[in-house]
Amino acid sequence: MKVKNLVGERFKERPSDCVVDSHALMVRGGYIKQVANGIFSLFPPARRVTQKIEAIIREEMDRIDGQEVLFPVVLPGSLWMESGRYQSVDNTLARFDDRNGTPMVLGMTHEEAAVQLVREYGSTYNRYPFMIYQIQTKFRDEARPRAGLIRVREFTMKDGYSFHTSQEDLEKYYARCYRAYERIYARAGAPEVIAVKSDSGMMGGSVSHEYMLLTDIGEDSIVICPDCGYRANMEAAENIVAPVQGEEAELVKVSTPGKATIEEVVEYLHGDTMHSVKAVVYQTNAEDKFVVAFLRGDLEVNETKLTNYLGENIHPALVTEDSPIVAGFIGPVGISSEVKIVFDRSLEDAVGMICGANDQDYHYTGLSMKRDVPGAEFVDIAKAFAGGICPVCGKPHLTVSRGIEVGNIFQLGIKYSKSMNMTYTDADGNSQYPIMGCYGIGVGRLAASIAEASHDKFGPIWPISIAPWSAEVCCLRADDPETKRISEELYEALEKAGVDTLYDDRDIRPGAMFSDADLLGAPVRVIVSPKNLANGEIEISTRDKSIQVKVPVAEALDKIKEIIRTLQDQIDQTVPESI
Amino acid sequence: MKVKNLVGERFKERPSDCVVDSHALMVRGGYIKQVANGIFSLFPPARRVTQKIEAIIREEMDRIDGQEVLFPVVLPGSLWMESGRYQSVDNTLARFDDRNGTPMVLGMTHEEAAVQLVREYGSTYNRYPFMIYQIQTKFRDEARPRAGLIRVREFTMKDGYSFHTSQEDLEKYYARCYRAYERIYARAGAPEVIAVKSDSGMMGGSVSHEYMLLTDIGEDSIVICPDCGYRANMEAAENIVAPVQGEEAELVKVSTPGKATIEEVVEYLHGDTMHSVKAVVYQTNAEDKFVVAFLRGDLEVNETKLTNYLGENIHPALVTEDSPIVAGFIGPVGISSEVKIVFDRSLEDAVGMICGANDQDYHYTGLSMKRDVPGAEFVDIAKAFAGGICPVCGKPHLTVSRGIEVGNIFQLGIKYSKSMNMTYTDADGNSQYPIMGCYGIGVGRLAASIAEASHDKFGPIWPISIAPWSAEVCCLRADDPETKRISEELYEALEKAGVDTLYDDRDIRPGAMFSDADLLGAPVRVIVSPKNLANGEIEISTRDKSIQVKVPVAEALDKIKEIIRTLQDQIDQTVPESI
Repeated sequence: MKVKNLVGERFKERPSDCVVDSHALMVRGGYIKQVANGIFSLFPPARRVTQKIEAIIREEMDRIDGQEVLFPVVLPGSLWMESGRYQSVDNTLARFDDRNGTPMVLGMTHEEAAVQLVREYGSTYNRYPFMIYQIQTKFRDEARPRAGLIRVREFTMKDGYSFHTSQEDLEKYYARCYRAYERIYARAGAPEVIAVKSDSGMMGGSVSHEYMLLTDIGEDSIVICPDCGYRANMEAAENIVAPVQGEEAELVKVSTPGKATIEEVVEYLHGDTMHSVKAVVYQTNAEDKFVVAFLRGDLEVNETKLTNYLGENIHPALVTEDSPIVAGFIGPVGISSEVKIVFDRSLEDAVGMICGANDQDYHYTGLSMKRDVPGAEFVDIAKAFAGGICPVCGKPHLTVSRGIEVGNIFQLGIKYSKSMNMTYTDADGNSQYPIMGCYGIGVGRLAASIAEASHDKFGPIWPISIAPWSAEVCCLRADDPETKRISEELYEALEKAGVDTLYDDRDIRPGAMFSDADLLGAPVRVIVSPKNLANGEIEISTRDKSIQVKVPVAEALDKIKEIIRTLQDQIDQTVPESI
Repeated sequence: MKVKNLVGERFKERPSDCVVDSHALMVRGGYIKQVANGIFSLFPPARRVTQKIEAIIREEMDRIDGQEVLFPVVLPGSLWMESGRYQSVDNTLARFDDRNGTPMVLGMTHEEAAVQLVREYGSTYNRYPFMIYQIQTKFRDEARPRAGLIRVREFTMKDGYSFHTSQEDLEKYYARCYRAYERIYARAGAPEVIAVKSDSGMMGGSVSHEYMLLTDIGEDSIVICPDCGYRANMEAAENIVAPVQGEEAELVKVSTPGKATIEEVVEYLHGDTMHSVKAVVYQTNAEDKFVVAFLRGDLEVNETKLTNYLGENIHPALVTEDSPIVAGFIGPVGISSEVKIVFDRSLEDAVGMICGANDQDYHYTGLSMKRDVPGAEFVDIAKAFAGGICPVCGKPHLTVSRGIEVGNIFQLGIKYSKSMNMTYTDADGNSQYPIMGCYGIGVGRLAASIAEASHDKFGPIWPISIAPWSAEVCCLRADDPETKRISEELYEALEKAGVDTLYDDRDIRPGAMFSDADLLGAPVRVIVSPKNLANGEIEISTRDKSIQVKVPVAEALDKIKEIIRTLQDQIDQTVPESI
């Protein structure tokens, strides 16, 4: 490919609407163009990257006996009604009526379609297990698309669905797929991606993992124990609290005029946040019923865990004069019975606590949970935090990092097979629901995340395995016949050798040419210039500058191929064995 | 791939809802499953076929300097408003509002998206010409999906868009693409696909061609001149009429009680249809205005040509007592001035004709167009017909065949660049609109059409270039250790040699195994049986039975590879040189 023919423009200025580097570089490099909020077209360089990622994914899915299929983007609403998700999923699911008035949806995930496809095939036990996958467009009408290809509304996704006759068999396959995902990230040049325990959310099921590429611009918080390797998405991370024993005291109602925040109250009463009870007020989405979450004053509510416990969706409360609570002065003693109350485990043995008295400008001191709120139940609804206790090894060294989710795998159980009535006859002639797993990777997000993890201020530093082109030949003086001839011969030799090569023979300044080369990010750069040719040499370097050599013209082709092999070998060494 | 693990069921009974053979065979063979009307999922065998077709298309598009991009499926309505198609296209264009109430459409073609992508890049003349293409999902809410993958609502399409600075350059590229399409069909094993002139329809532009696979189940009528090679879609075919000179006579109003059809009238008046005037009544979609098309009694109206002439859409008229016409007795003399009248060229020199008198139960005889309808204009609105005159060579040997459209190419002109204000600065510094071409192929339809063109009652006979698997090893006695061992070794050797092979080691009757093999259509079948092994032989045959040999076990691998090469060579010989 000649740079002069490559469709797309490259430029220097960072676009003002780009918050993260990968987004800015992919716009500046002529990789992507926004068509609507969260909807992008891909220029050829980005399409080449995604194709290489897709090829890696295909190979790894085939390696674990996946069979590629294709589901529709447009699905009948009736299929989603079967599973119940037509009703339960919010307007992230795009819905429309077709010309006959039939409700249709745009597939945001394809569990329903997968069950529909194999419902008859999977009617007898001896056809199990099997896994089907596709690489196809998805649409999710996200409220807040951001960061270029990292959070979009339309994206290409590999989604796979496995079917099993026992939980044990699912777990065995889940482990194979877990490993296949590790191989995919490693092969794509992102071995630093880690798997973390996650919340299953709208997918249902019990065990699930997310693959996280750690980066400060990530939207997710990941809790990691450096001691035992425990890793979980903040949404799913268990919070262990060391009990903080206060002093036993009488429950005393004290005046706290205008002191409505934890900080104000503890300062006013000379207490501390660890010996205070925080109240966070929500309302349920369905009925606007008030929910008060009580937890220790130094902790934060984990809304995912709270939602999962409640079994219904909530939003921050809108408190008015008619509400059955006294904002700023809410406490567990004497609270209105109209309010649903949830206690975090951090309060289980609490004594000597400050809490609201459910009376304007009054708090209690000396609260003892066991004594003053007998029969209270305690559940884990607080966020884990840096320095907190690991739920596996018990050591208090948890860290919290940011990450981008670049894939997820779920043990779904029988949620879909049961709701959609997919059954098989087992060896004893009994009817059973198959147990499912599902496995997703967003292709474009992975590409952008890798650019985010691996770039400098000049452009992406693509791993050789997914770079749009492996090599670029820069002819530094297109007006010099000898330079041009040798450049051209080398370009043709590389193409002939099967090296996907970019060739820049524009008559422009070297600086401008290198700027474009940095943006396009070919891992191997070959510079043909009159100056080097005067010594009979060609300059070869890698995009990350780890290799910079000059070689005789006649050896250039072999040297380039050798460097490409070296770069590929470096990646291959990070790839774990498949299981 | 082992047949026993292959997801999808195969069965014998022809499904009652399958009208065409390819549809029935692709359902029976476990290739496709309907999800909604005109919306299908693809099982692994179909996905393999479409992937091979996609690979061929990619190679040919790259060969003519196409650059692969990816446009979104979901496009903002505003983009289609720019071109005017949001307003002009009927409800085949699926529309919905996103969560913010913004109008969105599902891309049914991507001219708008293509212009949006390259509007900035194409700002200066020296970047032209260029062509971008994608292979992506499209949704068209067709009123009448039919015939499996042949006419669907959702489909995978390769669509390409070229941009030029002169009509001459467009035509040069159009010719290259025309040839690339011939190569694609030939490489996919359908060299019998022919290009025909077509109507540009909603795409706009002047010159366009459709690629037609001739088959009786096709929806399109194709007019072909066996003498000079002229070929056109019926919609676009010019109709040349030999003048039929009647006898000059007076215009006489005659009573024709209850004779409201051409046949009744000419019989009653002892005339003939060639000397009668047929009137066909329409109404415009926009205003319900009446339009009467007059043509010679033996001809039919070509509604596409009529619509193009009128410049607006029409539908068959709903005639009531208040309508300004007398149904059954409509004629050009004395017709209401409220009615828009169009005369076909077949009436230009007509004399001595029978026609309606615009009076209940009356006709005229002796109509002379020149004398009685002075100043009438005549245009070509009649259908060409078998035995008609070729508009190119003038010989009266036209034939009419049926065909499936498996691709189309259009010279679009500046319709989109102008309406969407895409301009470039030419060498003289003037602002110009680029001239566009566009080029489409439906991948699934091509697969189904090839199955339609090449099958027997047992299954599809796939060309080797697009077959889901090149070879199938049938182990006829899985319970016989020696047969099983040799089958397995051969399967593994084939896979190792890069031959995509299906392996059937199920312990079932040979008849059932061969039925499935016929449905899956691997071009080369390898039969390992105790009977043949007793002679030290393996049986190899092709799906079309053109080759049937027995070879010693040790030679089987080489023989299979040789047969595959032979089959591929046969295809390669039909592929024209690229230009």
